[in-house]
Amino acid sequence: MNKKTTIYDIAQALNITVSTVSRALSGFPAISEATKKAVTETAKRLNYSPNKLASALKSGKTHTVGVIVPSVQAQFFASIIHCIEDGLKEYGYRIIIYQSNESVDNEINGVRTLLEAQVDGIIASMSLETVNVAHFEEIINQNKPLILFDRVHDALNVPTITLNDFEAGYAATQHLIEMGYKRIAFITTVHQIKIFNNRLRGYKAALADLQLPVLEEHIIYGGLSVVDGELGAEKLLQMNNQPDAIVAGDDFTALGVVNKLKEAGKTPPEVGVIGFANEVFSEYITPNLSTIDQHPAQMGKECAKMFLNMIKQENFYQNVEHIVLNPTVIGRQSTRKI
Amino acid sequence: MNKKTTIYDIAQALNITVSTVSRALSGFPAISEATKKAVTETAKRLNYSPNKLASALKSGKTHTVGVIVPSVQAQFFASIIHCIEDGLKEYGYRIIIYQSNESVDNEINGVRTLLEAQVDGIIASMSLETVNVAHFEEIINQNKPLILFDRVHDALNVPTITLNDFEAGYAATQHLIEMGYKRIAFITTVHQIKIFNNRLRGYKAALADLQLPVLEEHIIYGGLSVVDGELGAEKLLQMNNQPDAIVAGDDFTALGVVNKLKEAGKTPPEVGVIGFANEVFSEYITPNLSTIDQHPAQMGKECAKMFLNMIKQENFYQNVEHIVLNPTVIGRQSTRKI
Repeated sequence: MNKKTTIYDIAQALNITVSTVSRALSGFPAISEATKKAVTETAKRLNYSPNKLASALKSGKTHTVGVIVPSVQAQFFASIIHCIEDGLKEYGYRIIIYQSNESVDNEINGVRTLLEAQVDGIIASMSLETVNVAHFEEIINQNKPLILFDRVHDALNVPTITLNDFEAGYAATQHLIEMGYKRIAFITTVHQIKIFNNRLRGYKAALADLQLPVLEEHIIYGGLSVVDGELGAEKLLQMNNQPDAIVAGDDFTALGVVNKLKEAGKTPPEVGVIGFANEVFSEYITPNLSTIDQHPAQMGKECAKMFLNMIKQENFYQNVEHIVLNPTVIGRQSTRKI
Repeated sequence: MNKKTTIYDIAQALNITVSTVSRALSGFPAISEATKKAVTETAKRLNYSPNKLASALKSGKTHTVGVIVPSVQAQFFASIIHCIEDGLKEYGYRIIIYQSNESVDNEINGVRTLLEAQVDGIIASMSLETVNVAHFEEIINQNKPLILFDRVHDALNVPTITLNDFEAGYAATQHLIEMGYKRIAFITTVHQIKIFNNRLRGYKAALADLQLPVLEEHIIYGGLSVVDGELGAEKLLQMNNQPDAIVAGDDFTALGVVNKLKEAGKTPPEVGVIGFANEVFSEYITPNLSTIDQHPAQMGKECAKMFLNMIKQENFYQNVEHIVLNPTVIGRQSTRKI
């Protein structure tokens, strides 16, 4: 009953589209005076928050925000996109999405395409290839809001929302130790990517803090996929000093590890396995998979909130905020040793 | 060795971006004459196909295609999007994506946003709510290519790529009968949506053709989700005339059915279960799930091909093609009764 009035309520009351309400509130010339009057009156009658009204009046022109992600096929990014959209829609903003497919050339094209499409701002997570960030500077130069999330770049002085990846690696390792495992291996990517390096640092720190040795032979560098997980587990199973638990770089890799361990008659939790990202399948496989919740929903919400805050400011980049989310361990059958 | 030259090869040879090559070939004024000359000469030297060249020269302005889908969170749509992108990129086209989230208002906004962004054409799958299609007619009126896939509308005389959903329902049911099951139930959505109705018709036809009775009590109308699958299976398990196999409306629903059957001590394949869509998790759960491959990759490829064919024509809508793909059964443990 106490729910705040949104522009959806105004649209419904007048039987017009949300887009028309948003445009009427923003004073678009294409909207008739009669409609503008009806919208303003209905907004008052329904106690539509003047803050929202003010921000709607003040903000951009197309009410479209561009979102650039490596791929929508990863559940993590798909969830974030949905939550960005949810957070922006009651303010009359819609989003258009561009995939870089981990290519910096595509990413450059994406920034251009979105700027040509006259978006009011861009929310992006960088491709694995991106080193030079001149294309992102172009957004700042056009005086439009740019927000980076998850995969960010220190060279850009823009707001960011990231996960504490060191803590993610630490928490995964600590969880295994708490469950009674003692010889913990780590399967990660060969690529020198900040978030994966930070996870590895977290893994090493947890072992050191809990007085367990860090064995270089227990760190497997490869790709991240079901097949890579199988290969990694195979290598580890051939060692004299076999691990009794494995931290896998993502849930797909963890799945490959689980498959190989089952094949070898060491079904988890006999050997413990934990992944990252809480992919859809991880709670449904047998044994179901312990993993790290990277809070994509919260990340998406924070991106939307950050954008709405930015557009209220005179100078978008005067007070640049950095939000760091903390990961959470989801303990399931694959690590229930005790 | 015999691989056809693409604009990627030209870009690589000249150490410039694909976008620049595409724009040079299309005669963009912003590209310098020197670059245009280098690109044209390299294209000739590498035997870049003159057909592609001609079509690149003739086609649109922004080299951007809009793709509207209900949600990128469904694996089915995410795969289609990737294959549309793959099919278009060697011709210098990029895509921007808009989600309707199953809302017709959002879909209307999406068409407007993409047209305002000056896309050269739109490839779309409709929201569940869409009945009136005036917003799609706007694309045709602006003389831009519109292609519909999977969820289409008879009122629009545009090219379509769809799955034979009747055949999908038929094949799933026939598979269960061939595996020795005789009392086959069907869990579907209450919504009157063409593709689900067609699957139901296929289910009934298969039973009739194979001399099995169609029992209305064995058709459960609800939602489609893990929880709905659990609810549906619970209802079916309480019947005197219990089914010995269940066709579930999608893989998530099938997963709920599997969970409930395990709980009741009737782990598949004791009671057979088959879903639709071959979601990522379906091959990894235990028992792994039989399902229907709806060929999203092929659907995406056909969309891209259709678009590239359309832009070569004087009149986009003179010869309207309709492509219907046939589904394939993927038999796994959940139906291996024999």
